[in-house]
This record gives sequence, C-alpha cells and structure tokens, in this order.
Amino acid sequence: MEPREMTIEGRNAVIEALRAGTPIDKLFILDGCQDGPVATIRREAKKRDVYVKYVSRDRLDQMSVTGKHQGVIAYGASYEYSTVDDILQKAGDKGEDPFVILLDGIEDPHNLGAIIRTANQAGAHGVIIPKDRAAGLTAAVARASAGALNYTPVARVTNLGQCMEDLKKEGLWFVCADVDGDVMYGLNLTGPIGLVIGSEGDGVGRLVKSRCDYVASIPMKGDIDSLNASVAAGIMAYEIVRQRMGLRGS
Amino acid sequence: MEPREMTIEGRNAVIEALRAGTPIDKLFILDGCQDGPVATIRREAKKRDVYVKYVSRDRLDQMSVTGKHQGVIAYGASYEYSTVDDILQKAGDKGEDPFVILLDGIEDPHNLGAIIRTANQAGAHGVIIPKDRAAGLTAAVARASAGALNYTPVARVTNLGQCMEDLKKEGLWFVCADVDGDVMYGLNLTGPIGLVIGSEGDGVGRLVKSRCDYVASIPMKGDIDSLNASVAAGIMAYEIVRQRMGLRGS
Repeated sequence: MEPREMTIEGRNAVIEALRAGTPIDKLFILDGCQDGPVATIRREAKKRDVYVKYVSRDRLDQMSVTGKHQGVIAYGASYEYSTVDDILQKAGDKGEDPFVILLDGIEDPHNLGAIIRTANQAGAHGVIIPKDRAAGLTAAVARASAGALNYTPVARVTNLGQCMEDLKKEGLWFVCADVDGDVMYGLNLTGPIGLVIGSEGDGVGRLVKSRCDYVASIPMKGDIDSLNASVAAGIMAYEIVRQRMGLRGS
Repeated sequence: MEPREMTIEGRNAVIEALRAGTPIDKLFILDGCQDGPVATIRREAKKRDVYVKYVSRDRLDQMSVTGKHQGVIAYGASYEYSTVDDILQKAGDKGEDPFVILLDGIEDPHNLGAIIRTANQAGAHGVIIPKDRAAGLTAAVARASAGALNYTPVARVTNLGQCMEDLKKEGLWFVCADVDGDVMYGLNLTGPIGLVIGSEGDGVGRLVKSRCDYVASIPMKGDIDSLNASVAAGIMAYEIVRQRMGLRGS
C-alpha cells in the first residue's frame, strides 16, 4: 500500500480539503499572515489536529508547484483503502475464522497506527473504520503502524452498524469493550469474530453497542476511568488470540 | 503529585537545563534568531525531542519573568518521584504481593504516560524507570497518563539492574518481554513480580535481561517486528492480572 502524495495550494483549495476531511499531514502558512481566510484555515486545522508550520514567503515560493500558493500550502499523503470483502477474502485464503477489528471513531493517528500494528501481530485479517469523525490513513498513521499498514487491510465504511449487520450474515458475531460489560476472561471469544473498540473520549456508540452480541470488560483495578484506546484494543485482541490458541481454561 | 512549574530564561541557563536533562515541555525562541548559541539550543532541543515554538520579541518580553530572556525561554514542569520503598509500602498497605513495572529505557512520553495509566488500571503498585536514556515525568507524560500519575508512584533509579537485585531480596522475581521468550500463557506469573518492558527501539538490555527469571513472549502472528511498547506492556500486565485472578488454566 504505497501512499499517494499530494500538494494542495491556495486558500480555497486548502479550506475545501480541510472541510472534506482530506488527510493532511502538514500545513504551511506564511508567517505573520492574519487575514480572514487564513484565520479560517487555522481554525479548521486546529479542529482536525493538523500540524501547522509558519514559514517565510521564500520557503513557500520554493515549495510551490503552481506558483499560486496565496500564503498557504498543505501536504497530504493518503493510503489506499481495502474493502470489507478483501478482509473476508484474506481470512478465507488462510483458512481461518475471520477476526476483524472495528473502530468506532478513533481520532488519534497514533492510536489508529498502533491498533493497525496490533491487528497485524494478533493475526486479525483487517481493520474497519467509519468515514466520519475518525482518523483516516495519513502518513502519521502509517508511521505509527510501524509498517503494518503495508500488510493489514483497512476498510472504510459509511455506516459501521450496517457493516456489522452485513458481516453477521457472513457468520461473524461481535464483542465490544465497555466498562459495564462482563469480564472478558469468562466469555467465549472464539469463532468468526468482530472486536469493536470505542473512541478515546466516548467509548462505543449506543447504536453500535446494541448490535454487539457480547459487551466485554477489561478488569479495572485503578483510580482513573479508562485505558488508552490502543492499549485496550491490544489487551482485548490478545484475549481473543489466547482463546484461539485453545487456552480457554478459566 | 502536583507539578513543579519552572521558567528558564537566557541562553546559558537553557543550554544547561537541556544538557542536564531537566524536563522541558516547550521552548520559545525569538523568530529569525540564527546565531551560534541559539543553533546549539535548537540542536539540543531536537536531540531531546523538545517542542520548539518561534515567537516575536513582544511575546517573549511578555512571558519573561526576569526581563533577561536573550531570545530564549523554556517552560518546564516536573513531577515528584517516589522511591522504590514507597512502591513496596503501597503493596504492603493493600496486603497484596508486590507487582511492579520496570521500564528499561522508554523514551517516548506518550508511551510512558500510557504505561503509567495501564499500571494504575492493572493494579500494579508502581513503575520504576532509569535516570539515563529515558523519558522523565514531564507534563506531556502526565497528560498521557490521564491522571494516573496522581495515584501510581513512579520511582527513578540510577541502576535498574542493581534495583532488581535489591528487589529480589524482598522476594520479587522478574519477567521480561522479548520475542525469543516462552509464550507467556504457559508461564506462572503469579506471586511478587516485576514486569520488565524494553525500549521502543532496542527491547530489553542484555544485563537487565540476564537478571530476569523468565523471558516471556507475546505470540506474534504478523509480518512486522514488534508491538508498540505501551501496547506490549498492557498485554503482558493483563496476563499477570488474569493469572492473579486465579485464572491460570492453560
């Protein structure tokens, strides 16, 4: 999965790209530039946690391909998405029960990358993410995945709940991680399975949770609310690995 | 554990602080300033992955407490360290076998924070880190710990190997995570235990590893080398939690 690299130049083009959710790695803005459109760009960039660097006009002129940067250049890199069918196909090719990780709104690129890395090592056949309110496959995600993005397919779907219904027809059942669930060690997590991980702030959404067959919890012995999302995904994924190895004893 | 906040002003003071390993969260440098001492500061900051922001003279004047910033101001925040005895005391107070997580050179503040968060939730009594070549307790670590730093003691020691020898006298034994170890599910990880996690790049050092009673591995079914260090720490810590719950069946 090689990245497609992009340079987006000019105020409107950059505003459009930010609003459309185009993956942007870095945004270069002319230092000292404070007018309305640039303020809008800075606001949108902040919302989406895009790294902004203030540079000189000479630097922008050098970087510009079109020569019409208007004080703003965005660098993007995005990776090709797979389809849900690709993921099922991968399980079929290996002769294994499907094991899919679904992310209900992970927004931090480091967490997304770390989860793709974990999916690869845990033997999951792919990762499914929603189109809205979630990190996409940017270069930051690719870096955090430590190369796993080249091996583990990631599919992006419009409606995560609908995707779960479709996968149920393929024989999958679903478990999500939530604090009010049953302790995961006591659940049977073998067979064709979809593991659903909620977002960093809000956990698993109500509609997605209602579609899960099991709600599983990680035992929490501490003083705070929750674990880091990528750590929680790793702990749950490896409980599935352990049970798939035939080590169910509890 | 409330942070001690610090403002360090002036070129020599900032260079000294960087070289001494003083935890620095943000470094403000006068925009356009390119002379020798400032180049040294930028180089040292880069080495230690300190976030640098280029600002105007007005901004620096505003921030300055001494009025003598010479174009450079560093903001630091550091947290109080506990001692290894505090950690053992905490286990004793709870009437539990000690469970300690030792980090052999974790350098990424997000990983350190996420591991402290995991330690808290897994019921570990504390985290031990070395003084050299490792992230210290900065505000970035505190943020990534999501509050856990207020509850879970972190001790810093000069020599991790010596610390392990001392803890062995207290009845602890040690397991480290390494790819060439025995699959962790088959090991007995109950009793007073120290879990050793290696650095992001190099894993567990040779001398530390030689002091471990067990070398445990997380099953790796993927195409890449390793897991994210905080994810690996979470998976290992929760295998200890599972076994401590009396669920050893394998």
